[in-house]
Amino acid sequence: MTQSGPRKGSVLISGVGAGQGLGAAIARRFSREGYPVVIAGRSQDKLQVTLKELNDGSAQAVMAIGDSTLAADVRRFVETAEGLAPLAVAVHNAGSNEPAPFLKVSEERFTRHWREHALGGFLLAQAAIPKLLQHGGGSLFFTGASGSLRGKANFAPFAAAKAAMRNLAQSIAREYGPQNIHIGHIVVDGGIDGDLLNSRLPDRKKQLGPDGMLNVDAIADAYWAMHIQHRSAWTLELDVRPWTETF
Amino acid sequence: MTQSGPRKGSVLISGVGAGQGLGAAIARRFSREGYPVVIAGRSQDKLQVTLKELNDGSAQAVMAIGDSTLAADVRRFVETAEGLAPLAVAVHNAGSNEPAPFLKVSEERFTRHWREHALGGFLLAQAAIPKLLQHGGGSLFFTGASGSLRGKANFAPFAAAKAAMRNLAQSIAREYGPQNIHIGHIVVDGGIDGDLLNSRLPDRKKQLGPDGMLNVDAIADAYWAMHIQHRSAWTLELDVRPWTETF
Amino acid sequence: MTQSGPRKGSVLISGVGAGQGLGAAIARRFSREGYPVVIAGRSQDKLQVTLKELNDGSAQAVMAIGDSTLAADVRRFVETAEGLAPLAVAVHNAGSNEPAPFLKVSEERFTRHWREHALGGFLLAQAAIPKLLQHGGGSLFFTGASGSLRGKANFAPFAAAKAAMRNLAQSIAREYGPQNIHIGHIVVDGGIDGDLLNSRLPDRKKQLGPDGMLNVDAIADAYWAMHIQHRSAWTLELDVRPWTETF
Amino acid sequence: MTQSGPRKGSVLISGVGAGQGLGAAIARRFSREGYPVVIAGRSQDKLQVTLKELNDGSAQAVMAIGDSTLAADVRRFVETAEGLAPLAVAVHNAGSNEPAPFLKVSEERFTRHWREHALGGFLLAQAAIPKLLQHGGGSLFFTGASGSLRGKANFAPFAAAKAAMRNLAQSIAREYGPQNIHIGHIVVDGGIDGDLLNSRLPDRKKQLGPDGMLNVDAIADAYWAMHIQHRSAWTLELDVRPWTETF
Repeated sequence: MTQSGPRKGSVLISGVGAGQGLGAAIARRFSREGYPVVIAGRSQDKLQVTLKELNDGSAQAVMAIGDSTLAADVRRFVETAEGLAPLAVAVHNAGSNEPAPFLKVSEERFTRHWREHALGGFLLAQAAIPKLLQHGGGSLFFTGASGSLRGKANFAPFAAAKAAMRNLAQSIAREYGPQNIHIGHIVVDGGIDGDLLNSRLPDRKKQLGPDGMLNVDAIADAYWAMHIQHRSAWTLELDVRPWTETF
Repeated sequence: MTQSGPRKGSVLISGVGAGQGLGAAIARRFSREGYPVVIAGRSQDKLQVTLKELNDGSAQAVMAIGDSTLAADVRRFVETAEGLAPLAVAVHNAGSNEPAPFLKVSEERFTRHWREHALGGFLLAQAAIPKLLQHGGGSLFFTGASGSLRGKANFAPFAAAKAAMRNLAQSIAREYGPQNIHIGHIVVDGGIDGDLLNSRLPDRKKQLGPDGMLNVDAIADAYWAMHIQHRSAWTLELDVRPWTETF
Repeated sequence: MTQSGPRKGSVLISGVGAGQGLGAAIARRFSREGYPVVIAGRSQDKLQVTLKELNDGSAQAVMAIGDSTLAADVRRFVETAEGLAPLAVAVHNAGSNEPAPFLKVSEERFTRHWREHALGGFLLAQAAIPKLLQHGGGSLFFTGASGSLRGKANFAPFAAAKAAMRNLAQSIAREYGPQNIHIGHIVVDGGIDGDLLNSRLPDRKKQLGPDGMLNVDAIADAYWAMHIQHRSAWTLELDVRPWTETF
Repeated sequence: MTQSGPRKGSVLISGVGAGQGLGAAIARRFSREGYPVVIAGRSQDKLQVTLKELNDGSAQAVMAIGDSTLAADVRRFVETAEGLAPLAVAVHNAGSNEPAPFLKVSEERFTRHWREHALGGFLLAQAAIPKLLQHGGGSLFFTGASGSLRGKANFAPFAAAKAAMRNLAQSIAREYGPQNIHIGHIVVDGGIDGDLLNSRLPDRKKQLGPDGMLNVDAIADAYWAMHIQHRSAWTLELDVRPWTETF
């Protein structure tokens, strides 16, 4: 009886870059299960590489180029997904982090991070929820970080933006859970393997040892595991971190 | 590459009662995957019913009768599991809750709940960790509750005991994670279907509607999903609650 | 030896309205202790009423009219304070709350609340910290709410904005605490007496009974108590709520 | 109007040792305000030194020798306080910490720390609350630690015990706040100056610099500040840490 539940339909991942990133891994994970997938992001070059990889698989995948902080673009992402199949899953995975001393942070940067993490999440929720309600339910997931839970020195813009997104997720979980929409917030704690860390800090990877950085496909498993949960036991929040991570 | 990881071996569930409870459901879940299982608890009658059900399946299952708050009994539980196969998974699922006005709570009751939830978890960790280290790793999971996170009125003994268990889990996660032991804490938030609520409060079930109570098999899926996580992305804590739960 | 410490100087309260609000109460509290005070807000009419009341006291008080979400205005607030005496205390108290179903919340409103609570706090921190560093230290306090800690249904814009401000406060506490700036975050949980609740929901006040709503002068005491703490035992966060509040 | 409120009466501090500890400092703080004080602890020698110091002040002070983990002793502490004046304030300040690798922690030690921090708090609450209710209200405060909030490696017994005490405090705050009893939980984060650290780790003190360790009198100010809060704005929890503390 359990795990029989998740509604099939299209999957929209907002915030997809190159194939070694988390967005692409989530796309691969749902694609592997036969879900048609829309990968949305700003860079056509990166999306095309990821798309090619997805299209070698069995499920349908398309890309949507646009800015996840612009309402019109996000609505277009959702429409693209609806063009494949009724929307079943939407994931907000956009946003970056640039640690810096607080007095070096410009108003523009503080605002930009909030737009990426929090406003982007808001826009995706606003565009996706009406469709999910119309189709009788679905999943809406947000990629968080340890910065979602607390503000470390030099992380003010990122931590402020991620905390906003987390409380947004909690608020709509309480409102739309009882309407059969599964809201999930995944706290990714640690360096992501294949990400910027890899190219910019190769020594860091060695230092962390085997599996000492987060494998994106392993993180993507957590999104899938949440999606297939029975609605009598939904997870709102879980953390993922490498076995050797100090926290 | 992901999900290839979990070490096979025996599974010990401490705190198993009748078949409609969570302990039995976790045993069924791992048994279904071919893991030999030890169900441990105080009531031979209840264990026998659950055991019969398990033995209709394909995997081996045995019972261990004893008190999860006594070190010698818990060590015996672990030895029983080791007798089936090297220990791979241990779950502390014992403990009860009896809400009452604070001034009606006896010292005996306050102590008893702590023994069930926290000392029992301590004893299981102390008995299981040396074996898991010897075998190169494994999983050690704790059943928490919303009371683990905060103390509501009339819940002092339960919430105090559950909070102790949670911090215990965090502490050993930080110590033994880097030694390849996956510590997990599952926050079960809501009424469990098939549990006491069912027999004592039948109207409550109706009121909550379909899937409004936690299905034990759905919760057990979360334990399984945590166990098969790749060690580069382990979850320490997740919550599970019914879609319609107010929180 | 303790409580001898706080540096005297000017106090800037950003987000002051009418005399029955919290901003005015904080101004009164520091004014009573002899600190020259700048009250900053958007409404000249409201500020003038509050200013009149303050000027009946012994300490100097001036008003600064402007928008706490505009960098130039916030810098002018700080300059006004510096004109009275070297800045010793800055308080971000601006921002409002308009509960609504999520799908009724416009992008404009979601953004506006973030600007009031989070961007305004960012701008005040950016303008005040260089002055406080120059003077050898001081206090920088933020008015939070229970929404800072969690997102309730219908509170997405407010809870997201408040959570952003909280993580901002944590981040700069870690960065500037060791430079002798005391960062404080006050979680105000409950209805404020004399606030909107009073005029719009008179029955609610009766229902809550004596002292069942937060008295603004009592809240202001918490700001004062934090300011006079010895730096060997600074508080980053405290909550205040009425004795009868359900939480 | 504010700060006029706190009921006068006797103060009981459970867990008082030598004069350089926190318990003695809390006793001094309330004594300085004219409250008769009972200092309770296990060591007659230490209590006598502290008592002598207190009796040089203006207020009455007596000692009560006993074990804060034994119900009869704790009841006697409360009776001793009632002998001075109707009980107005009770503080649970007992308990120790001995970091160690988890597998080196005996069941006896795990239990002992729980008895000191959590059971002792329970017993004090059970003995004090009926008196406070009878007198129309009062304050009941608990000394917490950063271990109350999370379990670090090697801190399992302490963190488990402190977390239990914290949820206990929350639970009774929700139950007895509306009956005019102010429950407070003070999270002491950092090394205490004058404590064991001083004698055993003199280099650590130098390294931390001026005010880099918690001054006990500064911490005691936080207890006093909480006690005099108006009941329309009670604090349940606050943290205190040195300005230079890393957290």
